[in-house]
Amino acid sequence: MKYLHTMVRVTDLEESLDFYCNKLGLVELRRSEVPQGRFTLVFLAAPGDEDAQVELTYNWDPEEYSGGRNFGHLAYAVDNIYASCQQLMDGGVTINRPPRDGRMAFVRSPDGISIELLQHGDALPPAEPWASMENSGSW
Amino acid sequence: MKYLHTMVRVTDLEESLDFYCNKLGLVELRRSEVPQGRFTLVFLAAPGDEDAQVELTYNWDPEEYSGGRNFGHLAYAVDNIYASCQQLMDGGVTINRPPRDGRMAFVRSPDGISIELLQHGDALPPAEPWASMENSGSW
Repeated sequence: MKYLHTMVRVTDLEESLDFYCNKLGLVELRRSEVPQGRFTLVFLAAPGDEDAQVELTYNWDPEEYSGGRNFGHLAYAVDNIYASCQQLMDGGVTINRPPRDGRMAFVRSPDGISIELLQHGDALPPAEPWASMENSGSW
Repeated sequence: MKYLHTMVRVTDLEESLDFYCNKLGLVELRRSEVPQGRFTLVFLAAPGDEDAQVELTYNWDPEEYSGGRNFGHLAYAVDNIYASCQQLMDGGVTINRPPRDGRMAFVRSPDGISIELLQHGDALPPAEPWASMENSGSW
């Protein structure tokens, strides 16, 4: 038995790829367009960790993708949590829970999927602007 | 960067562990009880695939965990999809999408988290009772 992926539905495929790849740092592994089902699947993963994937499902016919409380978040370890958050913030992503402790941050995807970033190994020393950044919204 | 886990919230920890471990086949890796936060975290994974985890969050103060549409499902590869579905069905779990094709099935956790099972490698030859089993509910 082996974990394959977590599937999330996305409203705007390009916006989602911009978030998950350009800002969060995942890479696209493969893509399937299924015209008869009117959907596109895109599989992403962290570079070098291709076995644990995220599957984006883009349905061609618009639908509203609200969140629920039974799903919590996706979590990734990152090499430098400040650099990861800076890249997300530079891309216009709100850091809902800034890494004040040098260890943990939360952001949300364009469709409200909560994503936890955890510093690999020991926490980094506190550093600005993170140390004094307030929480924003929920995650 | 590395995938760590998908977190889901659970209403009843024992019922959820029975589902995820006894019926689905995951194993418990570690558990943290956090009295000051009034929650318990339990980390699970497929045997031999401990790097890709599911984190169950059990909040001690009851809350309703409805589902949303932005999260889709968790997917696992299994060695024998008929044996996996039989074990789930013997445990009273509805097979929402039976593996009629010997390849794919969907079930739901007690809190409505959709879980996809995919036959590892080639599809199995069609077999009863699966081949003639109707879909049930949504997934």
